[in-house]
Amino acid sequence: MDLNIAVLAGDGIGPEVTQQAIKTLNAIGEVYNHNFTFKDAVVGAAAIDQTGDPLPEKTLKVCLETDAVLFGAIGDPKYDNDPSAKVRPEQGLLKLRKSLGLFTNIRPIKAYPTLIDKSPLKEDRINGTDLTIYRELTGGIYFGEKKLNEEGTVASDLCEYSDFEIERIAHLAFKAARARKKKLTLVDKANVLETSRLWRKVVTKIGESYPDITLDFLFVDNAAMQMILNPNQFDVILTENMFGDIISDEGSVIGGSIGLLASASVGEDHSMFEPIHGSFPQAKGKDIANPIASILSAAMLLEHFKLYEEAKAIHNAVEKALELKVVTTDLDPSSKYTTTKVGDFIADYI
Amino acid sequence: MDLNIAVLAGDGIGPEVTQQAIKTLNAIGEVYNHNFTFKDAVVGAAAIDQTGDPLPEKTLKVCLETDAVLFGAIGDPKYDNDPSAKVRPEQGLLKLRKSLGLFTNIRPIKAYPTLIDKSPLKEDRINGTDLTIYRELTGGIYFGEKKLNEEGTVASDLCEYSDFEIERIAHLAFKAARARKKKLTLVDKANVLETSRLWRKVVTKIGESYPDITLDFLFVDNAAMQMILNPNQFDVILTENMFGDIISDEGSVIGGSIGLLASASVGEDHSMFEPIHGSFPQAKGKDIANPIASILSAAMLLEHFKLYEEAKAIHNAVEKALELKVVTTDLDPSSKYTTTKVGDFIADYI
Ligand SMILES: CC(C)[C@H](C(=O)O)[C@@H](O)C(=O)O
Ligand SMILES: CC(C)[C@H](C(=O)O)[C@@H](O)C(=O)O
Repeated sequence: MDLNIAVLAGDGIGPEVTQQAIKTLNAIGEVYNHNFTFKDAVVGAAAIDQTGDPLPEKTLKVCLETDAVLFGAIGDPKYDNDPSAKVRPEQGLLKLRKSLGLFTNIRPIKAYPTLIDKSPLKEDRINGTDLTIYRELTGGIYFGEKKLNEEGTVASDLCEYSDFEIERIAHLAFKAARARKKKLTLVDKANVLETSRLWRKVVTKIGESYPDITLDFLFVDNAAMQMILNPNQFDVILTENMFGDIISDEGSVIGGSIGLLASASVGEDHSMFEPIHGSFPQAKGKDIANPIASILSAAMLLEHFKLYEEAKAIHNAVEKALELKVVTTDLDPSSKYTTTKVGDFIADYI
Repeated sequence: MDLNIAVLAGDGIGPEVTQQAIKTLNAIGEVYNHNFTFKDAVVGAAAIDQTGDPLPEKTLKVCLETDAVLFGAIGDPKYDNDPSAKVRPEQGLLKLRKSLGLFTNIRPIKAYPTLIDKSPLKEDRINGTDLTIYRELTGGIYFGEKKLNEEGTVASDLCEYSDFEIERIAHLAFKAARARKKKLTLVDKANVLETSRLWRKVVTKIGESYPDITLDFLFVDNAAMQMILNPNQFDVILTENMFGDIISDEGSVIGGSIGLLASASVGEDHSMFEPIHGSFPQAKGKDIANPIASILSAAMLLEHFKLYEEAKAIHNAVEKALELKVVTTDLDPSSKYTTTKVGDFIADYI
């Protein structure tokens, strides 16, 4: 297969971990005879510094012309604490999601047996956890109208949803549940929000065409509790943009390491794959960041193009690395392995 | 001291746990020579069933005329899964908060040593946790304009904040931090939301008049992670309504039992005290619900009126009950103690 992949490595540790994902994909290409070509483009704080725009036209064009985007991480503290900053790296990411129509963010969360002692949760709570979050990614309060009055004293954000925005992701989530444990949990705040009531109505309706899937509902505050009390109860969680942001980040730490979690953002025509961790500026350039999440996002890319065997090869290599403790210091403080060395091991193993 | 207290026991287990709080306050009244009078009023699903209104005028009048409100719990499953229901118990609670001007919800979260084995978190994570959440309670997306178009296909909720709504709670939070560990963490999503940027601007400004308090900022998704990874890092958390709902419920389970957590909602002229747990309809009338959260909310009421010694007496009695395992079955599955018996023990001990 020929695949053109846009590489948006971004800020902080983004470039160094993405490099290992590329290395891994190249190894796959060699072994399985695929032709992956990579095209770099700037994004985030790096892009602001270079062009004044967190998502330059040229970068967007590269993404629109390639088959998939491999994304690193963005964000820089120099933009965070300045409420008056006109341009922010995050705007680039939001615009990218919107422009590529990536309306669904998929985030699998799994308790790796080798990492259970790293989990903040007790073993009996986390054992066996295997869930996937379907987060709506191009609607809701993130993209609704924002206002600030002239005096700078009153601000507002609008959360808006249309039925079709809910329908398209709901179908994906029901289908995912069908291929898994056949349970779908809608997380909302239908006792307070109008948008949540629309979600509940539309999802209930769609559920009628998936009679084999058990559908249940959880208020977001309760979901935040259940994720800690008993993550095992979940199979597929479906939720709107902002709740998905919070719940999926909460879920991401229960397994013991966010350095292992990848995500896919998909739409009708485009797709993007990225580690869920941030740009971790403190570690930038030190060759200590864990590249596994980025490497596993490359595996999600392969799965998206139905290259299941190839994706499996990456998973096997990663599991081998974990087993042999060829890991960075976040997973094993006494480890001597760098970002590059972990990437080398995984690519060689393939 | 003379105190007129409105009792809004509400739904589910609300009445039976509130009864124990009243019993406890009566014991305090006897020992310390105070005159507490209680006035019952209906609220929630119970009020809908009786009057068609989750917060009847008469109930509101009682609350406005008394010195404080003791609240049980509201909510009934028959209203939850009906997106078209015109009246919901929760509306009563929201209207009550708004009408009494209860703009600050205060929720202390503490790891009780005797309960650490009940916590879903490992001991080294939860040990020593002692934080308080200041949640804005009468603004934001809960109270913003709600819309649904005629076809029922597009819904929206508006999140709005004015500087003065932020200022008044911020002052309370800074003062609380001053009496504690001198650290304040603002939780927001300033990289995306206009309202969050206003929060950050206003709170930063107010922080200048509290130079002894360390102020830091956390995005809500990160806060949801940190609450599990290292709750010990927090002293006072300040946040807007919806984030506060989610983060405080998440925080409420890390200590091992939500059956022990109380909250206060305060404004200029009124105050309300309630357990943080819900109405738990499955346990209704069985005399098995844990009354301690409700009893501790009575202690918060006393503190609010500066009856510190009296509040301390309740805390001591509760700690004795925990120590002697005079607790309901949620805390000790082999326990023979009912809701009433736990209440009796605590009242007698006082
Ligand atoms: C950077 C930010 C805009 C983004 C989000 O909240 O969507 C991030 O937190 C994420 O979850 O991908
Ligand atoms: C019942 C509901 C409206 C309420 C809220 O979200 O404020 C509850 O969850 C709470 O936190 O007190």
